[in-house]
Amino acid sequence: MGYQHELQLKVRDYECDIQGVVNNSVYQNYIEHARHEFLHQVGVDFAALALRKINLVVVRAELDYKRPLQSGDEFTVGTILRQSSRVRFEFMQDIHRIADGALMFQARIIGTSLNERGRPFLPPELAEHFHTIPSSPQV
Amino acid sequence: MGYQHELQLKVRDYECDIQGVVNNSVYQNYIEHARHEFLHQVGVDFAALALRKINLVVVRAELDYKRPLQSGDEFTVGTILRQSSRVRFEFMQDIHRIADGALMFQARIIGTSLNERGRPFLPPELAEHFHTIPSSPQV
Amino acid sequence: MGYQHELQLKVRDYECDIQGVVNNSVYQNYIEHARHEFLHQVGVDFAALALRKINLVVVRAELDYKRPLQSGDEFTVGTILRQSSRVRFEFMQDIHRIADGALMFQARIIGTSLNERGRPFLPPELAEHFHTIPSSPQV
Amino acid sequence: MGYQHELQLKVRDYECDIQGVVNNSVYQNYIEHARHEFLHQVGVDFAALALRKINLVVVRAELDYKRPLQSGDEFTVGTILRQSSRVRFEFMQDIHRIADGALMFQARIIGTSLNERGRPFLPPELAEHFHTIPSSPQV
Repeated sequence: MGYQHELQLKVRDYECDIQGVVNNSVYQNYIEHARHEFLHQVGVDFAALALRKINLVVVRAELDYKRPLQSGDEFTVGTILRQSSRVRFEFMQDIHRIADGALMFQARIIGTSLNERGRPFLPPELAEHFHTIPSSPQV
Repeated sequence: MGYQHELQLKVRDYECDIQGVVNNSVYQNYIEHARHEFLHQVGVDFAALALRKINLVVVRAELDYKRPLQSGDEFTVGTILRQSSRVRFEFMQDIHRIADGALMFQARIIGTSLNERGRPFLPPELAEHFHTIPSSPQV
Repeated sequence: MGYQHELQLKVRDYECDIQGVVNNSVYQNYIEHARHEFLHQVGVDFAALALRKINLVVVRAELDYKRPLQSGDEFTVGTILRQSSRVRFEFMQDIHRIADGALMFQARIIGTSLNERGRPFLPPELAEHFHTIPSSPQV
Repeated sequence: MGYQHELQLKVRDYECDIQGVVNNSVYQNYIEHARHEFLHQVGVDFAALALRKINLVVVRAELDYKRPLQSGDEFTVGTILRQSSRVRFEFMQDIHRIADGALMFQARIIGTSLNERGRPFLPPELAEHFHTIPSSPQV
């Protein structure tokens, strides 16, 4: 699909709830882990940023639950990073079930960086990895 | 604020992550718990619904992170339930820090019910508890 | 029961797993939160200890699962702190279901403090709160 | 080491807590997942057992925290299953850090099966996979 990063994972039973499916909150764990793996791969170092008093923060998450992941399901998390506004970036993340390729979940995670005075900006370390597909209209 | 339900909670240290603040996914735990407490209070019984093969499911979550909750913070989750479309309902949920009343987090959780054939509908048990404030424009 | 600290909690649905009961790992969340609340109440300040390069760490946990907590259960966590060996302390923690007083879970959490060179010791801030009941034989 | 099953995993950042290390409760997630993968591999089917009203339950966990896992660490969970008493089995589980082979964590998880009348027994499906090394003295 042209993702910049793909991560393969498997549902663990403790992630499922009384209804026998992965709890809604756990999808955010999956995609946070995928974002960190992606950033690590392209050399964006949280620790180094933090030392320079730069914090990456999520300001908004839009999550679409398409089909429920279940015990034993293997799936991929595909990630694209792009600019969202002057001082914001966004991760577009899709979860597909490997067995049949079904789209299970889609997320748009909007973030920014705060400098040492708490003012939002786009760090160049991140900007150089922005995907060039056009962004969706900003909310 | 005219919430239909308010729940008071306190941050637990294991809910905080490396950055020293509540992890983004944990807010979904907080508001899910608040929704279940609200539904339980108005007599909507998941188990009874399930026996009639009715499942309540989340189809979309819009989450706005305003300020980070931290270790020891006490907060309220305020909840309003209203109709969102012909076959969908939505929970509007706000988290305020008790110490200073600051708005920390806002969520719009859109759900539906699936009958035994997997077709979406609005169960009357839920509809009778819809708040009468007008819904925001549907996405 | 002569606990030094008691905390009242309620099971949240997301803490339950496929089997419909609280997942085994979640009991450690409950009792960790109870220990932190206890220490906070007696004035032991993790942050202040950490500034002096003192870390409290768990070295062993013995957990007995008696009866499973379920959705909606309200329960208490009772805590006693005592000396366990020359350089170790232990928390004895019991979970009782409020509805019928049944003992659901018992834990013995053995910890120590590490000074800035990584050497274990008993910080006086903690020792002054040791319960005087005799310790069980040390493993 | 002669484990019957080995699983390779990697720490995810959301599993780390304020202290910057994997939270104590998360180790139980890791080893539960390893046990389920092991049982699945040898053909023990929870769902099929449950249909016959047989439940596998943990009655006691002994957990030794040797060294803390940290963000980014890759590790293995090695598992051995053996008989523990007439009606109990036990999993011996070790976590080693891959980078240097260091032993990070050891667990002894004692379980039993409950039949439809709640009486403990050893299901033959499990017994045929018991390792033949002698059990440690029973507590």
